[in-house]
Amino acid sequence: MGRPLVTTYAADLASIRAAAKRIAGKAHRTPALTCATLDGMAGRSLFFKCESFQKVGAFKFRGALNAVLSLPEARAANGVITHSSGNHAQAVALAARMRGIPAYIVMPENSPAVKRRAVEGYGGKITLCKPDVADREATADRVREDTGATLVHPHDDPDVIAGQGTVALELHEQVPRLDAVVAPVGGGGLLSGVALATRELSPSTRVFAGEPTGADDAARSKAAGRFLPQTAPDTIADGLLTSLGEHTWPVIRDLVEEVITVDDDATVQAMRLIWERMKLVVEPSAAVALAAVLSGRFRTLRGIERVGVVLSGGNLDLGHLPWKTG
Amino acid sequence: MGRPLVTTYAADLASIRAAAKRIAGKAHRTPALTCATLDGMAGRSLFFKCESFQKVGAFKFRGALNAVLSLPEARAANGVITHSSGNHAQAVALAARMRGIPAYIVMPENSPAVKRRAVEGYGGKITLCKPDVADREATADRVREDTGATLVHPHDDPDVIAGQGTVALELHEQVPRLDAVVAPVGGGGLLSGVALATRELSPSTRVFAGEPTGADDAARSKAAGRFLPQTAPDTIADGLLTSLGEHTWPVIRDLVEEVITVDDDATVQAMRLIWERMKLVVEPSAAVALAAVLSGRFRTLRGIERVGVVLSGGNLDLGHLPWKTG
Repeated sequence: MGRPLVTTYAADLASIRAAAKRIAGKAHRTPALTCATLDGMAGRSLFFKCESFQKVGAFKFRGALNAVLSLPEARAANGVITHSSGNHAQAVALAARMRGIPAYIVMPENSPAVKRRAVEGYGGKITLCKPDVADREATADRVREDTGATLVHPHDDPDVIAGQGTVALELHEQVPRLDAVVAPVGGGGLLSGVALATRELSPSTRVFAGEPTGADDAARSKAAGRFLPQTAPDTIADGLLTSLGEHTWPVIRDLVEEVITVDDDATVQAMRLIWERMKLVVEPSAAVALAAVLSGRFRTLRGIERVGVVLSGGNLDLGHLPWKTG
Repeated sequence: MGRPLVTTYAADLASIRAAAKRIAGKAHRTPALTCATLDGMAGRSLFFKCESFQKVGAFKFRGALNAVLSLPEARAANGVITHSSGNHAQAVALAARMRGIPAYIVMPENSPAVKRRAVEGYGGKITLCKPDVADREATADRVREDTGATLVHPHDDPDVIAGQGTVALELHEQVPRLDAVVAPVGGGGLLSGVALATRELSPSTRVFAGEPTGADDAARSKAAGRFLPQTAPDTIADGLLTSLGEHTWPVIRDLVEEVITVDDDATVQAMRLIWERMKLVVEPSAAVALAAVLSGRFRTLRGIERVGVVLSGGNLDLGHLPWKTG
């Protein structure tokens, strides 16, 4: 990788601090929890940043809220739009409701009813599209033209990245002298925000990612030295299906030491450990970070004693768990 | 009920403060968490004291540790004994290991393997007995004679009650001016500790209990004005099967305003709400307290705005959940 190829990234400590100020009192300052049993299993001291306790149940609310609150009044009045069926959709809907502007959410027509209800519960206006990228984008463009709403991208947006960076801002305050931080990577909004906050706040802290083997574009891109988008993702970690973007890829290329891939079995095992030992409901995507920490690869790394682990969210269908029940 | 019939109970603020000092740094000071959605459903401000995050996953560790640490050196050397297959057994085993003394645990031979392993994992020495009260007590007596170990009763013990009272000591510090506290009741160790701490620390705070309709000896005893033990308990809240004891009944008779009974459907619904909305893994017994708060009866009570709710524990088999999965 050599030296960073660009010196200007989508966000920096100043924009992350501005985001923190903007969302203060509206987003939760989530706790950093510990677990002696998991420390023993990892052979290290782990500090879990619990974004599962964030509003809408995931870190996504930070970035969405920062983006919504950053809009100038005139543009904000027309509302915001996004295409997502996951946590970002709920996050945008709630953020818009807090600002008192409309949120237009484009969702595939095969989205589970529970996800639609969640978005509607936060006041989002849903437009259904066919479950393919082309129709999703065409539908979003049409709604945008009709309404004048501003797109809030799930990850490839400087305001969103700065918002997600507040996770690390808090974590470094709560837990000083971390040797490493590990976050899951999908589109890379969280990971790049964490990396950008960390390099200025705590430059000696090494940044790692956990990524599903079935959606490993970040790992492959890092290995190739160029952005290789995801084509056919297949993983239980449904929050990590997307590819990196223009804003997130350079940060991850330059500032993330290594992307550690984990298979779904390891993710499910890590998820069950978090439920059983920490008594926390987290979604599979969140467990990917612990799975990376417990991987053989991470164990071989030296000089890492204190590790921050970002538990990204806790939204899942409790009627469909990824282990045998009955 | 009129005036209290006795003026000396098993514990008081002094003994609860002494317990807090004894267990400080060894037991966790658990957080008090809030949830806007559940506030909305209850029509009140709820503060959840999360004993699911306590060591061994339940408040039981406080009382067991206080009892184990209170033993004089000479008696302690022979170890401690208890008969339990649940959280108290693990709590006694861990507390004894922390003091460096043996823990003898008498468990029914039909106890699930997972519970045996948990006790053994904390270094407890298990003696199996037949699954009836007579053989359980005979076995415990025999082990006690053989070893000279001291019995640590699950609830009917002043040191255990004082230890459980530290839950309320912390809660009143963390959340001042509570109008009410609601705790689940089984044997009554937690409830009486909470009531005894509250009456001195925050006398205007009203104390309530949640109890399963299928194990409602506390409610029936309160109604009759005399202790009526449980005969054939039947409830999903497996931590609340036992009857009140000599030490806990007078406290509950005099200092608990009302025992609110809830059926298992209400408990399961409350449990799922805590998992879905708060992202916390809690066991059915813990959910009984929220079920009571959400009951029609509790809603009719006036002058109650701020409510402490004790989430007593988070231990359950994640492979057997009380709702449809697949």
